[in-house]
Amino acid sequence: MTTIAFIGTGIMGKPMAENLQKAGHQLVFSDHYNPAPADLVANGAQVVHSAKAAAELAEYIILMVPNTPQVEDVLFSENGVAEVLKPGQTVIDMSSISPIETKTIAARVKETGAEYLDAPVSGGEVGAINAALTIMVGGSEEAYAKALPLFEVMGKNINLVGDNGAGQICKVANQIIVALNIEAVAEALVFASKAGADPARVREALMGGFANSKVLEVHGERMVKGTFDPGFRIQLHQKDLNLALSGAEALGMSLPNTQSAQNLFDACVKLGGEGWDHSALIRAIEELANHSIRQ
Amino acid sequence: MTTIAFIGTGIMGKPMAENLQKAGHQLVFSDHYNPAPADLVANGAQVVHSAKAAAELAEYIILMVPNTPQVEDVLFSENGVAEVLKPGQTVIDMSSISPIETKTIAARVKETGAEYLDAPVSGGEVGAINAALTIMVGGSEEAYAKALPLFEVMGKNINLVGDNGAGQICKVANQIIVALNIEAVAEALVFASKAGADPARVREALMGGFANSKVLEVHGERMVKGTFDPGFRIQLHQKDLNLALSGAEALGMSLPNTQSAQNLFDACVKLGGEGWDHSALIRAIEELANHSIRQ
Repeated sequence: MTTIAFIGTGIMGKPMAENLQKAGHQLVFSDHYNPAPADLVANGAQVVHSAKAAAELAEYIILMVPNTPQVEDVLFSENGVAEVLKPGQTVIDMSSISPIETKTIAARVKETGAEYLDAPVSGGEVGAINAALTIMVGGSEEAYAKALPLFEVMGKNINLVGDNGAGQICKVANQIIVALNIEAVAEALVFASKAGADPARVREALMGGFANSKVLEVHGERMVKGTFDPGFRIQLHQKDLNLALSGAEALGMSLPNTQSAQNLFDACVKLGGEGWDHSALIRAIEELANHSIRQ
Repeated sequence: MTTIAFIGTGIMGKPMAENLQKAGHQLVFSDHYNPAPADLVANGAQVVHSAKAAAELAEYIILMVPNTPQVEDVLFSENGVAEVLKPGQTVIDMSSISPIETKTIAARVKETGAEYLDAPVSGGEVGAINAALTIMVGGSEEAYAKALPLFEVMGKNINLVGDNGAGQICKVANQIIVALNIEAVAEALVFASKAGADPARVREALMGGFANSKVLEVHGERMVKGTFDPGFRIQLHQKDLNLALSGAEALGMSLPNTQSAQNLFDACVKLGGEGWDHSALIRAIEELANHSIRQ
């Protein structure tokens, strides 16, 4: 049994924490951040009133919060985690945040003698509930090997990608590819439909060849059927592409099609689609073509 | 045994014709178009001196030529196929040409009473040799059902997508997705590498999740290793994206990321890369980033 401070029990964090509790670990929540989940408290999770107090009790401090500023706040603000960190403890940031800021955050944590892993996930709420998340980890091999049993309670496809930052870099790379593969399928299906072919039959014919992808299978089907309930919300993918685009700017490089996909997500938001599934990017292409693939 | 006039015995057409001959069919070549393959002639293929003369002898006339003007020339020029077409014959265009012109070409052929199928392929020279081509067919169900045994001698993943033109539309959709998935992997790996991660490990970590695709598997490996011998040449993918972009213009729609990928292929050609494998599109992204992922 390991004692784990878990900060950020939203749509993703709550089921992840629940899987850790089911595996026999002692959870500690701080209700300064958000209310502690009542069912997990009823099953024995402790509740304290600051990130610092939670970290004092725990061997692992897991963060699952919206973005870079929230990670910095939980760790480094007054009554934050860093005030009590010491050797033997490990901070695991499973949020999706800036890969570039992560290197600085990791260095500050390690100054205390504690370990740091960046370990963002993909797979969404369903993956979190089913303990089937993909987990992309950055950090030392020793810290990774020690934390692996905890990751295995929450995910399935778990990889140490490199040093601190590499997990977040890998997550951004994942979100670039998923967005651009969605955009690719959208352009192809709108072209096919506007040219007179049945997009459902085109998608099926393409699934046997080099055009095949998880996105053609999953998001392509959503486009053909018009099932745009999330899923993964456009506003969350916009946040991830902002990490890519601001990161690229800081690195002095350009990501032309990522910028284009972000523009198309922005166009969806103007159509009222911030809460649509990201496969609804096709609606922006349909607007440009003045043509819907769903007759 | 069926008698088949086969026009266009280049890198793709020659092994396709050879597979038809091995399956027991009688081939007829016209040496007006290109020299008849000597080995197939030694095995019993006939040689005549015009497309018209070849068509007079054959139940099926298969075309495997570079682009739309060559198809029109073989069919409709003086001493062309159309001069002798009659009911009971079928023209199968397996070239990759304009989907929009294909509808006109099919209508002109059908005026003679003959049948028409557009049946472009993907899978490249290796797929042609191994009878493993993906074949995307447009035409009537009856003509498709009758020709299917011939397709099965040349390919594996064979689909009737819709009426005439739908095969060519599907091929263009295929080439849009493959180009844009290559571009996606290129942006992601250059970003990851420039941000300090190992692109090989990032690619491996991504292969278990929603970013996975045939392109990440096959072309992603080429990018990481820098093996850019074709494969599928950039100049051929440029031709296919031109069909997409000119088709989109004719249809009054835009394909923003297809245009961007074409610009990046153009940049590769300026670097001397018209004969590189299309996965070398990453070199254009590397130029923009002033960074190679291969140390």
